[in-house]
Amino acid sequence: MNCLSLGGDKLSQFTKQDVTPNPLYGLIEPGPVVMLTTARGGRPNIMTMSWHTMIEFEPPLVGCVISNRNHSFGLLKATNECVINIPTVEIAEKVVGCGNSSGANIDKFETFCLTPKTASRVGAPLIEECFANLECRVADTRMVARYCLFVVEVIKAWIDPTVKNPRTIHHLGSGNFMVAGERIKLRSKMK
Amino acid sequence: MNCLSLGGDKLSQFTKQDVTPNPLYGLIEPGPVVMLTTARGGRPNIMTMSWHTMIEFEPPLVGCVISNRNHSFGLLKATNECVINIPTVEIAEKVVGCGNSSGANIDKFETFCLTPKTASRVGAPLIEECFANLECRVADTRMVARYCLFVVEVIKAWIDPTVKNPRTIHHLGSGNFMVAGERIKLRSKMK
Repeated sequence: MNCLSLGGDKLSQFTKQDVTPNPLYGLIEPGPVVMLTTARGGRPNIMTMSWHTMIEFEPPLVGCVISNRNHSFGLLKATNECVINIPTVEIAEKVVGCGNSSGANIDKFETFCLTPKTASRVGAPLIEECFANLECRVADTRMVARYCLFVVEVIKAWIDPTVKNPRTIHHLGSGNFMVAGERIKLRSKMK
Repeated sequence: MNCLSLGGDKLSQFTKQDVTPNPLYGLIEPGPVVMLTTARGGRPNIMTMSWHTMIEFEPPLVGCVISNRNHSFGLLKATNECVINIPTVEIAEKVVGCGNSSGANIDKFETFCLTPKTASRVGAPLIEECFANLECRVADTRMVARYCLFVVEVIKAWIDPTVKNPRTIHHLGSGNFMVAGERIKLRSKMK
């Protein structure tokens, strides 16, 4: 392979199930760094993103801030489709590599040895090396001009159910990341 | 004390510094559960919240989804001021207790042995037992009617600089939480 093998090359072995409409917010709510994929004219792209939040349970809406300086901004505006892919620490170098480069110049799937897989309901690809993939359609662009904030609806969700405690990564600023640690259960009435 | 002592009672010993205008996004971006405080007519309230995201670096804007079924929704609409307090696992039981109850019925500071401290620039109190507190003013309410999404500007930020690796908690749904784990540094160009 000519791509940069930065670890995690065996992660394309995930066996995912369609979990729609299982609770998705447990994937987004803890605040992981995600990789947003888009595609146009047969060319896929990947953007690393940390500024996102759940906005609604049903239909499941996610707010994503995507700077208009990013190549993905134009792709998302043009196609209204994307996939939110959730990586783990095993491929952290690839995640950061995607964040440090622009799809205007390179094919990030090739450059970082990531595997695109055809999605079920959108034109953007799933990243195989991520344990969860959320296929999304843009639902509201009214906050894009002012805040670069896209509201997207998750219309299909894939997750490998054998991944019990995914070691997601969480950006602390300036290249510092926190890795998901221990799990605790509390008597919460929160959904 | 008559309040529910659920641990973390010595956390009011934090020595915080005003870190405005230091990078704040490193506090919000990793996706911790936060405690939003408001106050009206001398009565303070606390709401546990996980649906938030950074929206802009400068001025620092945070998007907060606050259901209109929450007591805090009306308080924030009326006063336009709040504090985003960031707790750690030591007071997780208090955090969940605040999430399971309503300020319409109880004084949560009293009930959960939390210490209100006068803020510098807003009427809502800081929670002493949290290592970081962000004083905020509502900057945009245009997404409130449709999404209960308030855009708030952080106008003053307090953090205890001796807290190096805060064990923040991150909601996974249904009372399951992830506790912040190890830190890693990667060569990121991301801010």
